[in-house]
Amino acid sequence: MTIALDAMGGDQAPEMVFEGAEVALERHPDLCFLFVGDEARLADLLRRHENLAAESEIRPSESVVTGTDKPATALRQGRRSSMRIAIDAVRDGDANGVVSAGNTGALMAMAKTVLRSLPGIHRPAIGSLFPTMKGETVMLDLGANIDCSAENLFEFAVMGDVFARNVLGIVEPSVGLLNVGIESYKGNEIVRAAADLLRTQQLSIKFHGFVEGDDITAGTVDVVVCDGFTGNVALKTAEGTARLYSEFLKATFSESVLSRLGYLLARPALSALRERADPRRYNGGIFLGLNGIAVKSHGASDALAFANAIGFAYDMATHGFNDAVIDELNRWYAGQNDEAKAATR
Amino acid sequence: MTIALDAMGGDQAPEMVFEGAEVALERHPDLCFLFVGDEARLADLLRRHENLAAESEIRPSESVVTGTDKPATALRQGRRSSMRIAIDAVRDGDANGVVSAGNTGALMAMAKTVLRSLPGIHRPAIGSLFPTMKGETVMLDLGANIDCSAENLFEFAVMGDVFARNVLGIVEPSVGLLNVGIESYKGNEIVRAAADLLRTQQLSIKFHGFVEGDDITAGTVDVVVCDGFTGNVALKTAEGTARLYSEFLKATFSESVLSRLGYLLARPALSALRERADPRRYNGGIFLGLNGIAVKSHGASDALAFANAIGFAYDMATHGFNDAVIDELNRWYAGQNDEAKAATR
Repeated sequence: MTIALDAMGGDQAPEMVFEGAEVALERHPDLCFLFVGDEARLADLLRRHENLAAESEIRPSESVVTGTDKPATALRQGRRSSMRIAIDAVRDGDANGVVSAGNTGALMAMAKTVLRSLPGIHRPAIGSLFPTMKGETVMLDLGANIDCSAENLFEFAVMGDVFARNVLGIVEPSVGLLNVGIESYKGNEIVRAAADLLRTQQLSIKFHGFVEGDDITAGTVDVVVCDGFTGNVALKTAEGTARLYSEFLKATFSESVLSRLGYLLARPALSALRERADPRRYNGGIFLGLNGIAVKSHGASDALAFANAIGFAYDMATHGFNDAVIDELNRWYAGQNDEAKAATR
Repeated sequence: MTIALDAMGGDQAPEMVFEGAEVALERHPDLCFLFVGDEARLADLLRRHENLAAESEIRPSESVVTGTDKPATALRQGRRSSMRIAIDAVRDGDANGVVSAGNTGALMAMAKTVLRSLPGIHRPAIGSLFPTMKGETVMLDLGANIDCSAENLFEFAVMGDVFARNVLGIVEPSVGLLNVGIESYKGNEIVRAAADLLRTQQLSIKFHGFVEGDDITAGTVDVVVCDGFTGNVALKTAEGTARLYSEFLKATFSESVLSRLGYLLARPALSALRERADPRRYNGGIFLGLNGIAVKSHGASDALAFANAIGFAYDMATHGFNDAVIDELNRWYAGQNDEAKAATR
């Protein structure tokens, strides 16, 4: 199981990439790595991470896609970039997946161009996990597709269902469509048409119906489906709210001598809280629907966050995520054909 | 200054409405109330709230709009409902504004039909305040308009700007458009066209540009503008995240004897935190762009929350919110006409 790592992407690259790989290797001893980047620097780092050396290879690149590069620019000018060469390794069969903490838009654009979409998937999406009252929820799309059709949302639901089932191991995951109310007449035409598709599908998707913004963290469903505009705003609003609450809490504990003392006593429990709510646990914009596995790690990733992103790529490859999506979609199209034949009889 | 109160709307009505009015009267001694609802029950309640009696009037109604009534049904069948008669009082000049904790969709539908939109406003919106790192932010639309044009968003920006300036007293409020990135090429055609309108306007709006979901609670701008689908999802996602964090915190403090002791010591400060983050402080879906003032209080409102909603109606009436919006739009249309004349010369 080899994962190609864009060793130059992310604020703390390349050191953080090696440290993250080390953590991931402890968790999954069968992992091998293909580090892509500045050859001299990477060779030096690999010497300093002895336990990685046996299972790692270095592939040189000539440039780095920056955080401000437009996707189209990165596509045109970044053919010899660490990001691109890492993706190429997946296409060429040299790696089972790619992880990068670089520019999200550029990574998606390159991955779409190089790997192409899975058969039956019109628009790959970005998914991630949210912490909830009950555990965690998969949500997609988080920003790859600004405008979506009902069919796009339906395909996201198929991918979210397969991810929850195969990768997270949830038995009969429930799938909800994000809307402004739970009643069937709520929302715009697109979400209502997507709900119709999900209600009538003969696949194994357990469609819950519409869910609202507060259902995401309530854990009402295992999979939340939405367009990329709404999903991106919801994700960032949740991050901002968690940050606000945590700031308020910090201020609260420094308010008086007693509350400072209370903080000291509760500190171990509060550290556990921080860990529980730690966004790094859920790090990884998981690219779903590509003909190859690609995971985006947050630009500000540290080693732990990067290791978690590698973990998602590993799990998707191990559990045959892409093959399962293709199977589901084949069943869907076969059902559609049967219906079409029945209708013309 | 008379506010008409839908005394039958909300989970805890009508008692809560009278208690809320009492709190509001303490804050604004010049307030008068028009309670609309079941005459016998309200007369009984008014006897028990002696300090309200002198400044209050009861207006009987024959029915109540329920939480599950569709807006169209409420419009057709609710002509003698407490909600409708309270709104009628504003149209007829018997009240300066109306507050209801009843069905949001029905309230907006009735208010639009009875009061109509302000001249120059094509779509009234629902706004509210969010707590932020720096204080508070006005956000609109929160769900009145699922699909919006660039012109709709522009009008929301005008109303948000006037609200921040006149009602909240913010000098030169900054206005941001909610998007999936801050770069000018990000988002869909509608937000980009709205940004163009805001960049070129000759009004007093200080346009900041695009903001992202986490900018809402960061307090990056004083006013956040978005369509009602996105705004509703963002609002509910923020509420859900705050609830999740607060549940995590509760669990944290009960984890060990030490953390329970720590909780006891920090309790006063933690109560202050709860109050600071208390959604009741910001209660009130403020209807903006109607030819009359209407405020929606949360269905689960208690007296304090309802008093805050009355406070918004009072402040909007006192500060001449609607006249200021009309003035701004007149300036906008005059500028458009000048441009059109200049172009034909």
